[in-house]
Amino acid sequence: MSILWESRYALRMERMTSSMIRELLKLTQRPEVISFAGGLPAAEYFPVNRFQDVCQRVLADNAHFALQYGPTEGYPPLREFIAERLSRENFCITADNVLITSGSQQALSLIGALLINPGDKVLVEQPTYLGAVQAFSSYQTGYIGVPTDDDGIRTDLLPDAMRQGPKFMYILPNFQNPAGVTISYDRRVELVRLSQEQGVPIVEDDPYGELRYEGEHIRSLVAIDAELNTSSDDCYTGNVIYLGTFSKTLAPGLRIAYVVAPPEVISKLVQLKQAADLHTSTFNQMVIYEVAKDGFIDEHVANLVDVYQKRRDAMLGALDRFMPPEVRWTHPQGGLFLWMHLPQGMSDRALFEAAVERNVAFVPGGSFFTVPDPPPTARLNFSCVNEEHIIEGIQRLCEAYQEQARTLAAH
Amino acid sequence: MSILWESRYALRMERMTSSMIRELLKLTQRPEVISFAGGLPAAEYFPVNRFQDVCQRVLADNAHFALQYGPTEGYPPLREFIAERLSRENFCITADNVLITSGSQQALSLIGALLINPGDKVLVEQPTYLGAVQAFSSYQTGYIGVPTDDDGIRTDLLPDAMRQGPKFMYILPNFQNPAGVTISYDRRVELVRLSQEQGVPIVEDDPYGELRYEGEHIRSLVAIDAELNTSSDDCYTGNVIYLGTFSKTLAPGLRIAYVVAPPEVISKLVQLKQAADLHTSTFNQMVIYEVAKDGFIDEHVANLVDVYQKRRDAMLGALDRFMPPEVRWTHPQGGLFLWMHLPQGMSDRALFEAAVERNVAFVPGGSFFTVPDPPPTARLNFSCVNEEHIIEGIQRLCEAYQEQARTLAAH
Repeated sequence: MSILWESRYALRMERMTSSMIRELLKLTQRPEVISFAGGLPAAEYFPVNRFQDVCQRVLADNAHFALQYGPTEGYPPLREFIAERLSRENFCITADNVLITSGSQQALSLIGALLINPGDKVLVEQPTYLGAVQAFSSYQTGYIGVPTDDDGIRTDLLPDAMRQGPKFMYILPNFQNPAGVTISYDRRVELVRLSQEQGVPIVEDDPYGELRYEGEHIRSLVAIDAELNTSSDDCYTGNVIYLGTFSKTLAPGLRIAYVVAPPEVISKLVQLKQAADLHTSTFNQMVIYEVAKDGFIDEHVANLVDVYQKRRDAMLGALDRFMPPEVRWTHPQGGLFLWMHLPQGMSDRALFEAAVERNVAFVPGGSFFTVPDPPPTARLNFSCVNEEHIIEGIQRLCEAYQEQARTLAAH
Repeated sequence: MSILWESRYALRMERMTSSMIRELLKLTQRPEVISFAGGLPAAEYFPVNRFQDVCQRVLADNAHFALQYGPTEGYPPLREFIAERLSRENFCITADNVLITSGSQQALSLIGALLINPGDKVLVEQPTYLGAVQAFSSYQTGYIGVPTDDDGIRTDLLPDAMRQGPKFMYILPNFQNPAGVTISYDRRVELVRLSQEQGVPIVEDDPYGELRYEGEHIRSLVAIDAELNTSSDDCYTGNVIYLGTFSKTLAPGLRIAYVVAPPEVISKLVQLKQAADLHTSTFNQMVIYEVAKDGFIDEHVANLVDVYQKRRDAMLGALDRFMPPEVRWTHPQGGLFLWMHLPQGMSDRALFEAAVERNVAFVPGGSFFTVPDPPPTARLNFSCVNEEHIIEGIQRLCEAYQEQARTLAAH
């Protein structure tokens, strides 16, 4: 007699679905497909030698510690390293502000557990990061969507959105996934001001901030918040929970990311993390710390910026050359993604299918919206395809586009 | 203006507290303390050389894969290895039955998310594993406690407990943490029979099953369930979710554990894991697979059994020699823990304090009960203290006990 498992599942499972992106990726893994669908860093630039040396050293010097259980908060030298690095933005932050997580996805999940009661609403950009929606939705949340333009979230529309009572705001300030846009300094100040005025926390998700290919770094929301908060604490005690990761700067396969927040928030997140997975791999934390330290991470990021900038430029150039003028796309100043606005009436899903037939892939933009009837859009990743393939892929995509445009005109 | 964070927390946070064990462990980390309080494997027996060789090999041969994002389900060769290993118990299990998790704690947390609506009740042994209670309580569950004796959970009391409508049963069959007891075969059959009859799933948590120092392996609940379920599927489709881990057999610091369940349950857990942390470290899964394979894990477990058996015997011997007859303790056939029943009226917390003053530590048993007014008990770990220190520590504990007994008699 088998149990009717279906009848035993909790209510939250009704909202859980497998990520469409992950399902699509499975379709596009044939070797002949040029895929702009992923969000992967370029594996050929992982600092493999450094990882080899460091793994060897950590196990030679400190194996009894590295292979043993560790504290939930994280490996102390790594927490200090992160605090020191972030304090480059000139605000008070100490290791007590830092929790190490198993990837930023875990940080999003723990934040959902901390803040969301079923039926609460989260204010999100339109489009927004799908992984965050997945994490938050598992706590049965609703969404308040705010449109974005080339300067990021439309802060002129925020006061109205705030009247709908969001529990918190989820914001990607730099080279947003999926839209590739960056929030201007003035809008950041406006976001922080509104957050402080209305007592609504900001979750600032910043996986790509260090991967900037042009322009100047714009002060992060957490640093602006610390500046506008005139408290005299010796660590950060403000309104922002900041998320960072080593997945894009060193390697995602070790799953090392971090949360920065006031100590009282960190201690609550520690309780949740104890229940969620006890602690993040001791060995991996030590390895990431040893790989990153002594300036290595900055050198390595400089190399990555060089590679990714060329790839972005190749994509922008090919689009300029091959794509008809009715299609618009964003000009990302960094990060991994570019966002394409298709003409009204075209189906991004149909374009995806036509593209896959021509052995090129992207992610249809619909999945990144929490509002119904999103406009037809496409997310294109440029970080894990070389320049030659980018040009070839964009050509194929333009052919698929032309085909769809003809079909559309014929109707 | 700082946010009143407290006012923003979700309802579930009211039930979250930091693990008392972890707080106690902080008190007992002075080097002069002989600690029976932890639950750590013996670090001096970690197979460090093998880990070194394997890390080097994985990074030399396959770094682009090992350091990259991976599938949520887990590294396919590791899933197959686990399926093959478990099929030694002669039941149908394939890689589709296996999900890799970031430690068993994550498995417990995902199972809570899958099955628990706020207010649901979980049937647990008394005492039971604290980490499971922490994981389940974060989903706002209640508990139905069933007493245990030297043969494990009292199945004669189960029918009555089942009438309270548990959502599932959480069972530790082998060398239970904390009590060190093992469920007899007849009681296992009775558990599975009741589970099938009443449609109540069993979560079988088996971190120590391979660490047996005497007696014969007793068939696991999942295998018994598969046997009693006469379906002709070619993979497991029954009523049990089984949890295993490499934390006790190889090393906990890599956080590699696994869930075995029907494929329909695995696919739901995969959705939850995507939201929770995307996937478990690719590198760590490959390392654990390469370390474990070709019979190494069996050889290594045989060595551990040898070491831990001597330590258990040292503890049992010292207790026999020094502890007065009114104190009783369990005789664990394996695992890491022994459980002590103190005389009625004695406070395990007061004994703990007296013991720490004499530089010996254990965990007061109260934390392992979900019912009010638990009897005075103590959990003693014997895996991470050498024999000499075990004898010395038990002597100190007996002195602390005599002191408490005199105080008790004086009142």
